[in-house]
Order: sequence, then C-alpha cells, then structure tokens
Amino acid sequence: MFRTHTCGELRLSDINKKVTLSGWIQRSRKMGGMTFVDLRDRYGITQLVFNQDRNASLCEQANKLGREYVIQITGTVNARSNANKNLPTGEIEIIVEELHLLNKSEVPPFTIEEDTDGGDELRMQYRYLDLRRSCVRKNLELRHKMAFEVRRYLDEQGFLEIETPVLMKSTPEGARDFVVPSRMNPGEFYALPQSPQQFKQLLMVSGFDRYFQIVKCFRDEDLRADRQPEFTQIDCEMSFVEQEDVLNMFEGMAKHLFKYIKNIDYDRPFPRIQYADAMKYYGSDKPDIRFGMKFVEIKDLTEGKNFGVFDNAEYVAGICAEGCAQYTRKQIDDLTEFVKRPQIGAKGLVYVRYEVGGTFKSSVDKFYGQDDLKKWAERFDAKPGDLILILAGKTVQTQKALCELRLEMGNRLGLRSKEDFAPLWVVDFPLLEWDEETQRFYAMHHPFTAPKPEDIPLLETDPGKVRANAYDMVVNGVELGGGSVRIYDSSLQNTMFRILGFNDEQIQSQFGCLINAFKYGAPPHGGLAFGLDRFVSMFAGLDSIRDCIAFPKNNSGRDVMMDAPSPISQDQLDELQLKLNPLEK
Amino acid sequence: MFRTHTCGELRLSDINKKVTLSGWIQRSRKMGGMTFVDLRDRYGITQLVFNQDRNASLCEQANKLGREYVIQITGTVNARSNANKNLPTGEIEIIVEELHLLNKSEVPPFTIEEDTDGGDELRMQYRYLDLRRSCVRKNLELRHKMAFEVRRYLDEQGFLEIETPVLMKSTPEGARDFVVPSRMNPGEFYALPQSPQQFKQLLMVSGFDRYFQIVKCFRDEDLRADRQPEFTQIDCEMSFVEQEDVLNMFEGMAKHLFKYIKNIDYDRPFPRIQYADAMKYYGSDKPDIRFGMKFVEIKDLTEGKNFGVFDNAEYVAGICAEGCAQYTRKQIDDLTEFVKRPQIGAKGLVYVRYEVGGTFKSSVDKFYGQDDLKKWAERFDAKPGDLILILAGKTVQTQKALCELRLEMGNRLGLRSKEDFAPLWVVDFPLLEWDEETQRFYAMHHPFTAPKPEDIPLLETDPGKVRANAYDMVVNGVELGGGSVRIYDSSLQNTMFRILGFNDEQIQSQFGCLINAFKYGAPPHGGLAFGLDRFVSMFAGLDSIRDCIAFPKNNSGRDVMMDAPSPISQDQLDELQLKLNPLEK
Repeated sequence: MFRTHTCGELRLSDINKKVTLSGWIQRSRKMGGMTFVDLRDRYGITQLVFNQDRNASLCEQANKLGREYVIQITGTVNARSNANKNLPTGEIEIIVEELHLLNKSEVPPFTIEEDTDGGDELRMQYRYLDLRRSCVRKNLELRHKMAFEVRRYLDEQGFLEIETPVLMKSTPEGARDFVVPSRMNPGEFYALPQSPQQFKQLLMVSGFDRYFQIVKCFRDEDLRADRQPEFTQIDCEMSFVEQEDVLNMFEGMAKHLFKYIKNIDYDRPFPRIQYADAMKYYGSDKPDIRFGMKFVEIKDLTEGKNFGVFDNAEYVAGICAEGCAQYTRKQIDDLTEFVKRPQIGAKGLVYVRYEVGGTFKSSVDKFYGQDDLKKWAERFDAKPGDLILILAGKTVQTQKALCELRLEMGNRLGLRSKEDFAPLWVVDFPLLEWDEETQRFYAMHHPFTAPKPEDIPLLETDPGKVRANAYDMVVNGVELGGGSVRIYDSSLQNTMFRILGFNDEQIQSQFGCLINAFKYGAPPHGGLAFGLDRFVSMFAGLDSIRDCIAFPKNNSGRDVMMDAPSPISQDQLDELQLKLNPLEK
Repeated sequence: MFRTHTCGELRLSDINKKVTLSGWIQRSRKMGGMTFVDLRDRYGITQLVFNQDRNASLCEQANKLGREYVIQITGTVNARSNANKNLPTGEIEIIVEELHLLNKSEVPPFTIEEDTDGGDELRMQYRYLDLRRSCVRKNLELRHKMAFEVRRYLDEQGFLEIETPVLMKSTPEGARDFVVPSRMNPGEFYALPQSPQQFKQLLMVSGFDRYFQIVKCFRDEDLRADRQPEFTQIDCEMSFVEQEDVLNMFEGMAKHLFKYIKNIDYDRPFPRIQYADAMKYYGSDKPDIRFGMKFVEIKDLTEGKNFGVFDNAEYVAGICAEGCAQYTRKQIDDLTEFVKRPQIGAKGLVYVRYEVGGTFKSSVDKFYGQDDLKKWAERFDAKPGDLILILAGKTVQTQKALCELRLEMGNRLGLRSKEDFAPLWVVDFPLLEWDEETQRFYAMHHPFTAPKPEDIPLLETDPGKVRANAYDMVVNGVELGGGSVRIYDSSLQNTMFRILGFNDEQIQSQFGCLINAFKYGAPPHGGLAFGLDRFVSMFAGLDSIRDCIAFPKNNSGRDVMMDAPSPISQDQLDELQLKLNPLEK
C-alpha cells in the first residue's frame, strides 16, 4: 500500500502520528522559508509543509513539483496555526520527512478546480482530467450510492436482479435499433435492446414474480440536447399485482432514496393526478408541482365583449402570479417576448393587475370593465396585489405555451428550488394516440399496456377515449419513470393488435416469442422503468444527464476522448461479409 | 394484489387463516371425492384441496384445470393428516372456497420438473418454461444473491461502481470485437467492449482509486463448449496499491462470498503457488488442489537401463494414486486408453504397483528391477498398496497429459466433490509468451502488465524469463478471475511496446487515449476481473455456465427462443449505408 491514510481523513485527534499519503498536487506555494503543498485524492485535500531550515534539499525537491504530479510522502501530523475552516482536514497539516515522486504530469489543458477554465469540448476530450474535479467526481459517487440503495431496497422486497441479453432481436417498431452484424450468421444482425420489455414479460411467464435490472439500453435516435445513445434504466416487473401494488412498491423505492440519499423523510403519500387533469391544470403530463399557479379557464367569462382574440379562441386561460401586481411595463413586455418566442409560439399575452387598492388594470381595459375583471379575478382566486397572465388560442398549443409561462414565472419567483422535491404520480394515461399522418392509432405506451377495465367497451366505439392502467412518476417536472399494467388475456390482446392495425405476420415477427409464451399460462403482471441517469441528475441538481455519466457521448453520438466510432479494417468488414455503401453526395 | 401469501410460506402456525394464493398448477389428482392440486409459485408449492361433498361445482371446476394453468384461490389453512416431510409447506393444505381461473395453458412441450423429459434444444427454445423448473430458478436466485453480496462487500471497502461505455472504440488487438455501425457517422463503427480495461485504467488516472463494475463484456469468438458471446465480469481496479494489496482485497471478497453464500468460514489465507510450480506439480496454471497427487519427476532415476521410451523422453514423471495397487488389468487398460485419446495424446502409460506385501509389479519390469522401482517409490513417497502412474515425452505435452490423468484419477477416487472448495492464487506468471508462428513475443496478460521489479533487467537480455506481477484466482481447477499490477512508468511502458514489436502508429491507434492520459499523472495501480458466470456456476455446482444465465445463446451464438440474430430490412441497411457482401460459395 502506498499510503497509511487518505487525504481526507486526518484530524486534530491524529496529531503527532507518522503517516504516509499519496495523491496529486492540487497547488503549491512558497512563503518565506516554507513550501505549502495541497495534496489531493478522491477523499479530500491535505496540506503538506516543507521547511527550508529543517530540510533544505527536501524543500528544494518540493519546489520542483508541478501541478498534478503524483507523489507519496511520509511525515508527521501537526496542528495548523491558522486552521482552514472550509476543509475537513483544515485543522492539521503534515510536516513532510520523505518525498517520493511517483509520476510527473504535463501541464493539464484546464485547471482541476470547481470553476475550471476549460470549455465543454476540451473537458470532454480530456474527460479523465475533468473527472478529477470534485464536483464531477461527486456526481459519480452519488450515482454509485443511488444504484446501491435501489438494489438494497428491491432486494429487501424480494426482487431478483436478472440479466437479460444485450445481443437480442431487432424489431422495427419503436425507435431505431442499433444493430450488430453476426459473423457466425452472415447477413444476420443482433439488435441492442431499447429496453428489456419482452424479456421481463417472459420472466413473468417464467414465474419470477419480482424482477428488476439496472441495465444499459440503446436508442439510435438523432440526439436532442439531453439524450445519450446509451442510457441506464432501472427496469422492474411484478406478477400477481394490480396498478395500486406497483405504485406503492415504487413509491416506496423513491421514498427510500429520498431518505437514504437526501436525508428527506417523505412520509405522505405521493399526490396522484389523472393525465386529463395534468393537462387541464398544468398543460403538461409531467407537471412541476413545487408551486401552484394552476391554469384557470375563463373562456366563458370573456365572451360577447367584442374582443376578437378571445372570441375567436378555442381556449382562454391563465395563471395568477401572487404578489406580482407591481410588475413593471418592462417586466410584462419581457414575458410577452418570452411567450412569443417561436419555440413557445403564443401570439401575445394579456395581463390583469389586481392593484393593492382593489381596482384592476389590464391590457384589455378597452373591452372589459372593472366588473368583468372582478369576475375573472374571483375565478382565479386572486387577491389584491396579484397579477393575472392570460393566453388564448387553440387548446393544445395554448396549454403548452401557458405551461412554459407558468414554469418561467416559477423560476422568476424562486419557486423551483433544486433542494425541494415534489414527486407525484400521473395516472390514467390514454391507451392510444391518433396519428394524423398515418391515420392510425399507436399505443401510447406499448401494445401490451392494459386498458382500464371499465373502459374496455369503448375500445370498439371510441378507442381514443380509452384510458390505460399506465402511470408515470414525475418529480419537479421531470418524468423519472413510467410503466403500465400489462394485458395477459389473449383475446383482449388480439383486440388491441387489431385496433393498432397489426397483421398476423407483423405480430409474429415483432412479438412472436412473447405471444407464444403467453399461451402457457401468463400471470397478471405490470411494471415500470426509471431512467437512472435522470434520477441521479435530479438528485445532483444537474441540468443535464451528461455530468452524471462517466464517459458520455456528444450530440453526434461521438466519444471524443476515445475517438469512437471509427473506421474498421477491410478484414473486419470481409469477415462480417459487409461492404460500405456510402450515399452519393 | 392477487394473493395474501406465497405458495412457500404457510405453516402449521397459520392454521385456520383465510388466505388467497395465486400460482401455476404443478399437478392435480383425484382421490375418491377429493381433488388435490399442487399450486406452485417462485417460493414453493402448496397443496389445495377441493371436496366433492362440500362444494361439488367448485370441485368440478377444479377437475377441469390443466397443468400450468394460472389460478387464484381463496381458502382456509388446514393441518394435513399425512404431512409431506419433503415440502416446507408439507404440514398444511388449503381447503379451497373460491377459485378464479386467471389464465389457461396449452400442454407444455416438456414437464416442469427437476427431472424434465425435455432435451436441451427444446428447453432452450422454450426457455421461459425451462426457467419455471426450480433447479433452474435456483441458479438465477443464487446469481442475484452473489452479485448483491459482491456489491455489498466492495461498497463496504469504499469501491465505487462506475458504468463505462458499451459503445466504444474497436481495437484490432486481442479477440475479435463485435462492431456496431453508426448511422450518424456513416462508415464508422463502435465496438462492444471485450473488457472495460482501458476505461478502468483511465478512471485510475482520474483518481477514482477503488473502482468496480459488474458488466457485460463481448467476444466474437468461435464458441467452445462453455463460452458465450456475451458474458458478465466483476471488473475491479485500485490505485496506490501493490500486488499484495490487490490479492488481500479480493481474497476478502471470495471469503465474503464463501461465508454469506455457502456458509463456509474460510479463515486461512488462500495458498499461493508460483506459475512455474503450478506447471511443475500440476501441469496446469489452474490446478485443482482439492486433492494431492502432485507430479513427481523421475527422469534421472530411469536412465541407463535401455528403456528407449524413457531414455528418449525429455520428461518422465508420474503421480501416485494412494491405495490403488489393487487396480485390475482392465482398470489400468482403461486409464491407458484414456491417456491415448487424441485430445490427451500420450503414447502410453507406465504403471508400478507397490504391492501390499512390499514388492513391486510394473509394466516395465523387463528394464527395471525391484531396487530401481524402490527408488522411484521413495521419490513418490509411495506406500505399500499405492499405484504409480508414469508418462514420458516432450515436457509441455506430457505435463498436460499427466494433468488430465491426475484429474481423471481424482474423479475416480471421489476426490473432487462439488461441495468442497479449494481456492488458491497462482502468481508470478511469465510476462511474455513467445509465438513461434509470428516469431514475436506477445503479452501473456496485456501490454500494461508490470514486470516484477527484480526481473526488469532481464527484459533486455532474456525477455521470456521475465515474470509479471500478474495473478489468477483458481478454485477447483477453474480460473475464476485474474489480473495484474499495471505499468505506470512511461519509459518502462515504451520498453514493453518495443519488445512487443509495436510501432508508434499501432500504439497510438490502439492505446492512444490511455497513453496520452498517462502523461498527466498516472498513479500506481492494479486490478483484476472475475467471470461472474463461472463464479456462479462454481457455487451452483453446474458443469456449464449456461444454466446460470437466464437467456443463453447456443454454440452458433443464436438465441433460439427469440430467433436472433435475424435479417434486417433493406431500409435499415440503407440508413446505415451498408450492403451485404456474401462470400462466393
């Protein structure tokens, strides 16, 4: 062992101990006849002292050490005359007696500090140096701890972690698969799993009634800002359960994580909200309920006053921003600009100031008198001093825009602290989504999702109205996980396939194995999957999942550090019996 | 919830409780006016009773249930008049009051019993039914438990589990990579990791001084009997350590598993044996030391007696089988046939019977007298009643053949019980292996493996003699894991590359990122990797790793259940800008 202690553990109680430490040189400074070196490892920073008077040659050696050199020292723990209260080891220092240079370092391309001078691209290229920064390291420590606690909880609940294949069968439905050519079976390909969905349902058929797996999944999608081609899921499935059982089990898991990771005792039940209400009150199927400001619809109150914008709108609704009546013209103009941005797409913003004195001032005073505005304010439950912000237009678009405005107001009013966690379940999702382009229904979740029993008759008469036993866990406006109870009755399954427009051949090629398995006694079952990357970045307070992944890829799916993907040799192609076939440019 | 209890938990203490159970029908039998049904789930089997007199229609319903039907019942726990001592639930039965058929089952293609009538191929095709058999299920339960205990131990030791990329860079060295065409980067490919070797060394450079990962790895090899294209490793690395520290840490892990999985307190240190001695005494770098029967060399004692076979042999050695002097001619002929099998390849077998009376009888009596044989016997430490078996020939081949003979004798003498575990470390592996065909040295482990410091001078004069700080953990003749201390000094690394015949371009393309990272302060580090599949099958007493994998592939790398790999669509190929290029037949 190259050390007796880590750089994070020595305290005043260790005074006069002879210790050996190893680590990297964070910084070093000369002051008079003394050289002070901050030695860093994964556990912390310890100050080393070299004394010119005491040992000139050792001090001289120390003066030659550069940033990020790796050294081993032996010395004696000493109380510091002026303690550094910011450092757990700040009350001690090491009077160095022996010094071994373990390895030199070139000058790193950016500083290894919380506030580094390295840009994103440079840090990705030298990710192994970026990972030395304690803020990045802490994210991976958190990730380890969260995965460990997930396993501990699920193990205690009788779940078995079962590994499913990475080399599996390609199915054209869903997102695009990554494929892997098979050398032993030329012309054939494996696919990397988008999720172990079919395998976990097969495991239920096998009788493994509580399965989970923390597992890499893959999607060959054009990468949006916060997507990665490979990502990690906490994938779970249970048998002999109803929706209520699944929700309770995984609400328990989330509470376990709140408790053991964030030290938060969340003892109330998670609120549950129907999908329809989430859309109605928040314009989103993943509402951020850290704050109120629910949507209030006032279309009926606005009619007949010759205000064309409202009269011609399908939907008129707004939010009430408490205590914001004093917002300046400039502030309101800013908000108007905000909602008019192309990605939000509102035509304009109507405001009503409920002045502290009890009167109203609005941008539509021409059309609506004090009495009208009073009625609006009553519906909004507004008080003097509040500001009402209103949008109008087509229902779905306007709800989306109002959702963005609500979140923006939440930000402006400081109602979205990363230290607060507001979890909830969104339930009763629609079973099917109509696609205008292909003029057919698609399964909103997947084709095995069970409809709510009371909605089954609607399958034949009004499929779009059928609600599913599907659910999402949402925290602070982020969907951390979701799933459904599955169909296990084969005639209901056939109805589903018919409504989705699958023919027998498609069913067989995409789900053949599972459909066949279901003939041999499938139990009632259901489950869900959480995105581990998102869960960790939520707990870490990160804006992107990238910083909780050790070696992430960029938006072109490249690992710029390793330089992957890369060309392969002609021999490799020949063995795979493949040929490049570049598109004509 | 479809049940109040599982089928494995009810006992005499639950008598008269009203319970609801769900599960599969294992078997059912009619006896007089009673129908008995064995209901099975993951946790066990519970007997259900339907009484014709008490409830005729319910009993009739029960009589219609087939094997593997899924049912839910409610009833009352009753003491059994004749308890079944083989079943944990054997003292109770359930008098059924309600019965719900949850799902029917077709007749399964083989019986769901320990001793099934299904052949290998059929069971693989219907793996989801094979997994219902309790002997198969238990292997996966064991696997879950072992992985969990590995994580618990390593977490307690301060290791962080860090996920490394599955989509990485292809490197031509080593076994063949599986590759993944990149749609976003046409003409370029990712590779699936054969091991996260470079990533874990990068993590050491990053300062994560204790890393592990239970991780899928991939090798596109022609599959031998007990290989899988995807397999799972317990991959580990530590910084600021010497070989001794790594061995102690992971000996601790193995002991933790012995204790918490097998209830074995293994409190002695694991024996350590040098590679050279392993070859000398066992003819194998993974000796099975559950029993002795070490090799004894007698070439010097055999010379000058005109026995050409021995005189012309480079190597003459044997083993002493205690108490086997009474072996019949037939038994010895069997052993001779055994060593002459082509896969073993010995020319013949010489035996010496040390008769109980103190005289010797051998197959070479023509050449060697009683005095000669006595000297041999003394060297073998043989006693009257023992049988000495001798092979001769070229050293390496003969050692291999003698190794097989020793294991065979161990089997015949019942010295290789699956309930005994004899772990050891094999250390001091050669650093380099000479390859006759290409006339160059190859790294026996990998090019970053550190030579023993005292052997470094030999690198220039006699590289084949250099020993490495490399080690394997072997249990019962199976290599469960292995690793090495790594080179962290760049000039030593350059010497290594030169000896291995790498040019700069090869170094850069294969190890560029790591070599570059090493410029920024690499700490001393080392590690190892265990094969989880092998570890589990060792603990489960299995002959193949296949049965501890939920969904294994066959020897052609096919998943016969899912039918993967399979052709993909022309659209998929076009998007990847690839073309099939079948070999002319």
